[in-house]
Amino acid sequence: MYCLLKLAPLFLAVAVCNGWLFGDFVGKQKEQDEISLWPLPQKFQSSAVAFKLSPASFQIVHAKQSSAGPSCGLLENAFRRYFEYIFGDLKKSEKSRKKVYDSDLVELQVWVTSADPECDGFPSLQTDESYELSIDEPSAVLKAANVWGALRGLETFSQLVYEDYYGVNKINKTDISDFPRFAHRGILLDSSRHFLPLKVILANLEAMAMNKFNVFHWHIVDDQSFPYMSRTFPELSQKRKGAYHPFTHVYTPSDVKMVIEFARMRGIRVIPEFDTPGHTESWGNGIKDLLTPCYSGSSPSGTFGPVNPILNSSYDFMTQFFKEISTVFPDAYIHLGGDEVDFRCWESNPDIQKFMAQQGFGTDYSKLESFYIQRLLDIVAATKKGYMVWQEVFDNGVKLKDDTVVEVWMGNKMEEELQNVTRAGFTTILSAPWYLDYISYGQDWQHYYKVEPLSFPGTDAQKKLVIGGEACLWGEYVDATNLTPRLWPRASAVAERLWSDKSVTDVGNAYNRLVQHRCRMVKRGIPAEPLFVGHCRQEYKGL
Amino acid sequence: MYCLLKLAPLFLAVAVCNGWLFGDFVGKQKEQDEISLWPLPQKFQSSAVAFKLSPASFQIVHAKQSSAGPSCGLLENAFRRYFEYIFGDLKKSEKSRKKVYDSDLVELQVWVTSADPECDGFPSLQTDESYELSIDEPSAVLKAANVWGALRGLETFSQLVYEDYYGVNKINKTDISDFPRFAHRGILLDSSRHFLPLKVILANLEAMAMNKFNVFHWHIVDDQSFPYMSRTFPELSQKRKGAYHPFTHVYTPSDVKMVIEFARMRGIRVIPEFDTPGHTESWGNGIKDLLTPCYSGSSPSGTFGPVNPILNSSYDFMTQFFKEISTVFPDAYIHLGGDEVDFRCWESNPDIQKFMAQQGFGTDYSKLESFYIQRLLDIVAATKKGYMVWQEVFDNGVKLKDDTVVEVWMGNKMEEELQNVTRAGFTTILSAPWYLDYISYGQDWQHYYKVEPLSFPGTDAQKKLVIGGEACLWGEYVDATNLTPRLWPRASAVAERLWSDKSVTDVGNAYNRLVQHRCRMVKRGIPAEPLFVGHCRQEYKGL
Repeated sequence: MYCLLKLAPLFLAVAVCNGWLFGDFVGKQKEQDEISLWPLPQKFQSSAVAFKLSPASFQIVHAKQSSAGPSCGLLENAFRRYFEYIFGDLKKSEKSRKKVYDSDLVELQVWVTSADPECDGFPSLQTDESYELSIDEPSAVLKAANVWGALRGLETFSQLVYEDYYGVNKINKTDISDFPRFAHRGILLDSSRHFLPLKVILANLEAMAMNKFNVFHWHIVDDQSFPYMSRTFPELSQKRKGAYHPFTHVYTPSDVKMVIEFARMRGIRVIPEFDTPGHTESWGNGIKDLLTPCYSGSSPSGTFGPVNPILNSSYDFMTQFFKEISTVFPDAYIHLGGDEVDFRCWESNPDIQKFMAQQGFGTDYSKLESFYIQRLLDIVAATKKGYMVWQEVFDNGVKLKDDTVVEVWMGNKMEEELQNVTRAGFTTILSAPWYLDYISYGQDWQHYYKVEPLSFPGTDAQKKLVIGGEACLWGEYVDATNLTPRLWPRASAVAERLWSDKSVTDVGNAYNRLVQHRCRMVKRGIPAEPLFVGHCRQEYKGL
Repeated sequence: MYCLLKLAPLFLAVAVCNGWLFGDFVGKQKEQDEISLWPLPQKFQSSAVAFKLSPASFQIVHAKQSSAGPSCGLLENAFRRYFEYIFGDLKKSEKSRKKVYDSDLVELQVWVTSADPECDGFPSLQTDESYELSIDEPSAVLKAANVWGALRGLETFSQLVYEDYYGVNKINKTDISDFPRFAHRGILLDSSRHFLPLKVILANLEAMAMNKFNVFHWHIVDDQSFPYMSRTFPELSQKRKGAYHPFTHVYTPSDVKMVIEFARMRGIRVIPEFDTPGHTESWGNGIKDLLTPCYSGSSPSGTFGPVNPILNSSYDFMTQFFKEISTVFPDAYIHLGGDEVDFRCWESNPDIQKFMAQQGFGTDYSKLESFYIQRLLDIVAATKKGYMVWQEVFDNGVKLKDDTVVEVWMGNKMEEELQNVTRAGFTTILSAPWYLDYISYGQDWQHYYKVEPLSFPGTDAQKKLVIGGEACLWGEYVDATNLTPRLWPRASAVAERLWSDKSVTDVGNAYNRLVQHRCRMVKRGIPAEPLFVGHCRQEYKGL
């Protein structure tokens, strides 16, 4: 074995002098690679027939019949992105050093069938993400109604390519027909408890696309900080206790645009959450009289509670603020929060008490909460946006628009809540079992994986109202240093649950694929943490 | 506030148009910075008198009386390192743009008092790490017996410097007399369950120095993989199931040298662990007959157990192997493991059974284990090295050299074990309460912080035998993607417990300092995770 020690840098020389060794190591790898689709497609047929792909001759192209062409920037960017994912970010010198093989498979034709490919559009809750993928000599064909399905198919295609013993890229003869089980597959990130640099948000959008997530629920502000830089009310982020810092810890209008465009290019909706009337401490210094002054006995204590629901000025502010939000964020939905309102401050305030009496609310402060929310919903409805709300808003009997999405987040009585919300005819998404900020020793991804969102008792019509779910990574304990490895591949478990067929529940099989999928994410630059002992052929290159 | 929005990049212009704002934000920061020493020095006196430091005129220099001078590479490197930590990695253009202030404090004189400064030596268990630091106009003086104390004092000096309202670096008039409470303050990293790229190991050595840790316990091989590339037995890492990969997942002799030298420059000992007779699955393919063949009924099952203790060849191998290890690793100690030996394979093997009978061991396989360990210890003792062992070796009554260090790792009956080990007169280190691979939601650093290593019942002489402890980050769930943020700042809690006075136990005070210390680590490029909500002035720039 001394030969090996001396010739370590000369890969081929070693392979010659220790042929058995080379085969051994690489062979072990190959087997694993072939079965690593994530999330698993709905219909999948594969044969042992393998086609070679060479970076020098393989291309991703628009099919002749496609309604999309070179002017479709979204697809052009996706072609480049997936070419690089498949062949690595080849520098010129590396490329020329690599032996050029002829490709058996010369191209992937991407065929968008609808008259409008939606190249410049935005994905929506109604978006058709289905696609068909046929890998055969000499051309593979990816067929989708529009660019959104094409994006999903490109990801799948890139996952099918593997390296054989000799480092040659190969893909097996395959037929796939795929579509998501649920239309809303989201990740919640919280940029208030800790500010998340743009780079972190973009990297996670990239990882979301690798897992076919399609909603970025941006919990952008909360008690702790207000990093959203508003054009209409810049004081919100600029005043003390607004953003953590008025220059370095804010999202400028350009930053927000960049997030939305980066997400759009990957078929991801951006739904911002501006949670009121609670969770608003950071709003207080920017907007005079917005928050309720709390009282200690008969005088103000100097602290503030939820949004003051008895002043017209509060609603005037919300009208202007959400007018801005409705133009900045293109998605049809805004998340309005409405969770965890602490009544103690309202209870302490004599003006609020008086208002309660006038309205005949007695001492039921949830009625006051509903009073506020009702007016807010009407304000937002006037902007022509739909809204999402946390479950309390529904629980408190607020009158909601028919297209409202109720987010079920409370772990106790989750099934009962799903029953109630859907019985009332509202669409709902589930996040209760997927609070990924809670961590524990070992493979907790399996718990997320085993959740069946439709296991609650209810009619078929009720089940259809469950349009998806979200993995939530609240920000108390995560920032740029640890967010990405904590989220991935744990969120991947949720991704497969929300995309693949209900019958895809084999944890052992999932483990084998997920090990490879996480290595693929690592190879693509995402520091996804390991599931258990083992290694990736290419380990993470960052820190 | 529109002025601010438009002029955001022009920092000074904004400060003029919103003077209040600038002060507000930076002021909040300053207060926090001033109290962020970690770990807290033994004796510390500070005044409100502050001296300015300018990167253009401040210098770290050898004192005239010092026994160390410019030929002391270790100190020269440390001077440069700490200069950069204090003033940032100034590029020339940045430096010239920065306003040059005169320094009130023109230099830090580093005065090594011993005739031999130990510039080219290695730290040891006996090393004197004490130092005295006096900050006064015009020169600060750092006094230490040798380079090791000087390194600790440089870290402290760098932690005393803060930026005021105007971004000017300042340091207060201060007197510090400092020394560690415990001599052995270690971090265990495991490069077998997952391979840790060199970069990750070096970054964590850097973080260790920031926390005054002084032992890197390198659990370098285990069942899962054998990344140590042996000169004498290269097959160990090169054969299938040795290293995860024979080229990309090994530590070459140069790599090991680099780790040792990088650690030495920071006053850190490197103690490698080669754990036998259990935890050796990865050794099996490289060395014929080293592991015990397990039997299923009357025939070998094809699987293997611990090192085969009945063959002379096993001891011949160990003799040669540890001869190499004793020359490669300069530290006076080698960790020999000896934990968690599974007896089932030995029990199944008829040759072992026969040997047991011959030796009169009956069916007490711990006697066989002791038989093996005893011979191994004698082999290692012949190399003139001392050894560390896990507690089972002591528990099983193996005869140990007087200078053996017994590592107490089992959580149950930890105090009883410390009593027993010290009653028998052995030195011991504690890792049981500091298994940082176990994670949970929230601020678990507080649990690590609250541990008092000497709380067990025993005489003063017994307590003196507790020479320190180790924070262990076993590798089942960590690799390059998540190791560093998972370790820091949780391990910092252990650092202060092992360095500072026993009376330093105020968790609230520790929280405030640790928040700032973790931001300091982030600023220096270490992705230390957040303790709770909040922000750092400079967030992590990686992913």
